[in-house]
Amino acid sequence: MGVSVGPISGSSKYYSPEGVPFRRVHLSTGEHFDLYDTSGPYTDAAATIDLEQGLAPRAGVVRDRGTQLQRARNGEITAEMAFIAVREGVPAELVRDEVARGRAVIPANHNHPESEPMIIGKAFGVKVNANIGNSAVTSSIAEEVDKMVWATRWGADTIMDLSTGKDIHLTREWILRNSPVPVGTVPMYQALEKVGGDPTKMSWESYRDTVIEQCEQGVDYMTVHAGVLLRYIPLTIDRVTGIVSRGGSIMAAWMLAHHRESFLYENFGELCEILARYDVTFSLGDGLRPGSIADANDEAQFAELRTLGELTKIAKSHGVQVMIEGPGHVPMHKIVENVRLEEQWCEEAPFYTLGPLATDIAPAYDHITSAIGAAIIAQAGTAMLCYVTPKEHLGLPDRKDVKDGVIAYRIAAHAADLAKGHPRAQQRDDALSKARFEFRWHDQFALSLDPDTAREYHDETLPAEPAKTAHFCSMCGPKFCSMRITQDIRAAMNEKSAEFLEHGNRVYLPLSS
Amino acid sequence: MGVSVGPISGSSKYYSPEGVPFRRVHLSTGEHFDLYDTSGPYTDAAATIDLEQGLAPRAGVVRDRGTQLQRARNGEITAEMAFIAVREGVPAELVRDEVARGRAVIPANHNHPESEPMIIGKAFGVKVNANIGNSAVTSSIAEEVDKMVWATRWGADTIMDLSTGKDIHLTREWILRNSPVPVGTVPMYQALEKVGGDPTKMSWESYRDTVIEQCEQGVDYMTVHAGVLLRYIPLTIDRVTGIVSRGGSIMAAWMLAHHRESFLYENFGELCEILARYDVTFSLGDGLRPGSIADANDEAQFAELRTLGELTKIAKSHGVQVMIEGPGHVPMHKIVENVRLEEQWCEEAPFYTLGPLATDIAPAYDHITSAIGAAIIAQAGTAMLCYVTPKEHLGLPDRKDVKDGVIAYRIAAHAADLAKGHPRAQQRDDALSKARFEFRWHDQFALSLDPDTAREYHDETLPAEPAKTAHFCSMCGPKFCSMRITQDIRAAMNEKSAEFLEHGNRVYLPLSS
Repeated sequence: MGVSVGPISGSSKYYSPEGVPFRRVHLSTGEHFDLYDTSGPYTDAAATIDLEQGLAPRAGVVRDRGTQLQRARNGEITAEMAFIAVREGVPAELVRDEVARGRAVIPANHNHPESEPMIIGKAFGVKVNANIGNSAVTSSIAEEVDKMVWATRWGADTIMDLSTGKDIHLTREWILRNSPVPVGTVPMYQALEKVGGDPTKMSWESYRDTVIEQCEQGVDYMTVHAGVLLRYIPLTIDRVTGIVSRGGSIMAAWMLAHHRESFLYENFGELCEILARYDVTFSLGDGLRPGSIADANDEAQFAELRTLGELTKIAKSHGVQVMIEGPGHVPMHKIVENVRLEEQWCEEAPFYTLGPLATDIAPAYDHITSAIGAAIIAQAGTAMLCYVTPKEHLGLPDRKDVKDGVIAYRIAAHAADLAKGHPRAQQRDDALSKARFEFRWHDQFALSLDPDTAREYHDETLPAEPAKTAHFCSMCGPKFCSMRITQDIRAAMNEKSAEFLEHGNRVYLPLSS
Repeated sequence: MGVSVGPISGSSKYYSPEGVPFRRVHLSTGEHFDLYDTSGPYTDAAATIDLEQGLAPRAGVVRDRGTQLQRARNGEITAEMAFIAVREGVPAELVRDEVARGRAVIPANHNHPESEPMIIGKAFGVKVNANIGNSAVTSSIAEEVDKMVWATRWGADTIMDLSTGKDIHLTREWILRNSPVPVGTVPMYQALEKVGGDPTKMSWESYRDTVIEQCEQGVDYMTVHAGVLLRYIPLTIDRVTGIVSRGGSIMAAWMLAHHRESFLYENFGELCEILARYDVTFSLGDGLRPGSIADANDEAQFAELRTLGELTKIAKSHGVQVMIEGPGHVPMHKIVENVRLEEQWCEEAPFYTLGPLATDIAPAYDHITSAIGAAIIAQAGTAMLCYVTPKEHLGLPDRKDVKDGVIAYRIAAHAADLAKGHPRAQQRDDALSKARFEFRWHDQFALSLDPDTAREYHDETLPAEPAKTAHFCSMCGPKFCSMRITQDIRAAMNEKSAEFLEHGNRVYLPLSS
């Protein structure tokens, strides 16, 4: 079993005095630029990686003082909150306050000390989740661990292990012990596998045991489709694509077979008690999310969202942290309504959406169709975006798809951070653009989301090292490079300015000065 | 010299009774679905393609009755307008009216009869332009002709030949004679090449002669950076990335060297007279567009936009069709302002934007950073989107980049059409989603923007033909396919419904019915 290790090109691992890791980009000007870093020890040249052994647990995990939510309400700034404050560049009190209000969550199971603390909430940087996991058709444990490391290398803030094939428990164990980010699951998948894949054979008892098993193992957040109620199923009957959530469709099949209300809904209080013991965060699943443009924002979807609001209150009354999952497939003009209703009905619990895809017509490019929707929904206040890969609707993503999905979603998240005026966001754009304008090619690559591919594309036509300081690239060639010409213009203007000032003519001075 | 010919997979060429071409998708249900088709005779299995010969000219081109704008004002529905009405599925009178009001343009040089009439305006489907053309560093005529055919195959509505290297005239001749879509250029590039690449050596006379040469050849629209005035140059001095438009920087260098106002601005009236003779459309260039997030919506940019508004009035008074070019690099929250100001200052002339890129930090993925901005700006009313390829800022796009750029922009354009409620847009999403739900894999592929890649991705894990009707894919495997489970649920509900109706219990009936 092997995974990608070593620093990202042009960067090295830097730990702040508080022990918070950053990706430090070294610029040719002698300056450096520190970036939020999700990649864990794998990109630390000094770290020894032993997958059999797992990552070293972080110190200071407190198991007997309740959840981050309970402690935040008590006015405590936990070790995790202090870490996050440095990581996000915000006051620790803001972190505590947002968690206490339920507007942010810190998914950190006491039994997953390998994970570096992070926060999901609209007052902080927009986060990205990458789904991995095998299916009955394809993949292995080694491949899934590799995908986990690979996804966090490129910027995944959390991982969901959605394995539905063989070795579900063991695959998750390997992932948890080696994951530097929180890990989410949908316990229903394993519960279903335990009864041979027949939804009608599931029971509350076996589901509950599966949840406890996963809590013990260290899963940080769990998708629970407790808002899919029996009476909502008929609302899906006229849809173009019915129920497209796996968990939602499984629960619907169970309810219909037994003609009973959802056992997740009926036993939600007990579920809260279990999750509270480990500080596992709820990700209340949108089992009735739209699976096509035609079904967006319909009655079924919003009926479930109202129920998720009820469940949010219950979970919080048990001190359990909660986030809310959102769609799916939504045309651009219907996206913002999703955020507004979620905020209104679910007490501003962090919204966590899958895309949404802004159109259905581009299978093989759904990382793009959905990055459009994701950027818009994040700008409106969504706290975490679940990536979509180019393989969505077509097959299980491989390593390349995982990277393509993560990069597309880092773009969406960053575009939203910029639009929201996140304090650190534009600094990176400015640093990269300045490097671009000054033809510091190496710096431009190093500051980018994917230095390797940026360099590779540049080098396809101009591979020689001198081209890395050349005042042009192959797009325009030397004579037509606007940035080179602008530099000449600036030099000329500086000359002229001095000249005209002597004659009292100010035409060349910036009008804005 | 070779280009890609033959129908797109799952489709054939269909000509309406009026002779308007469509891409007809043949569904396994026996139905068919007709799509807007930019690909010309190259995808017609019955056509003979001879690049030496060029495409057959269309009949009915009228050279002596003025421009489409003048004829629209006179109440005439031209042959081109009638063709477009069928192509867009709208009344011909709407086409005429929008052209007469200057809110839409039909770029159709009398000397480019090989092109199929199309319209650019916010009342119609959002259009996509693909830039091709060589640079001094790389590419050949054969490659550029191949890119032109390749770009239109995947949905480019117009092509801009931005060649700046050798054989500019000859490259353009090959492209024009073989292009089924309007061709745009930036005449400045050739004018500069004629004086050895030194901007200070340019003159109005040689520029004018270049414009006439290109009008004679058949160029349908021309980017003219006549809004970059001498007094605006100082406004760019504090920018992070200065002037990033090649045409803008060249004119700035000329003005500064000569300390004179732009010869494009001063001779704009004569330029109008020339363009009117051929019905060449102005694309008033944004020479001062922002080249970075930091420079978006600044004084330089908007000063130029106001001047473009003045020039729009002058062009229209000469009966010349006009569109307005827009940025560039703009964070999401500043995008819509660009459209509002353009509409206000430029009499709602069609807006034609490059992206915009919603962040600067992802070189090698700027088709995605910009598809986000493009979708948003198109939703707000932009009529045509100039694509950006993954190679932007790094090198000259190759064949693969051209396709990636076109597909990303067809996604953005379609997402905007959906959001604007374009009558035909959602029909395609619905047809594809219905095929997806019913596991008609071949139909899903055929209805997609890129059937080849969709099929390829699916087949990576499940290549056998029976998998094309299987009720699952490798993403979830058979037991976890939500769509399969939903179909089972629907079958069960139909049974139950009947049963409960007999007992007067309506719980399973759709509440919405």
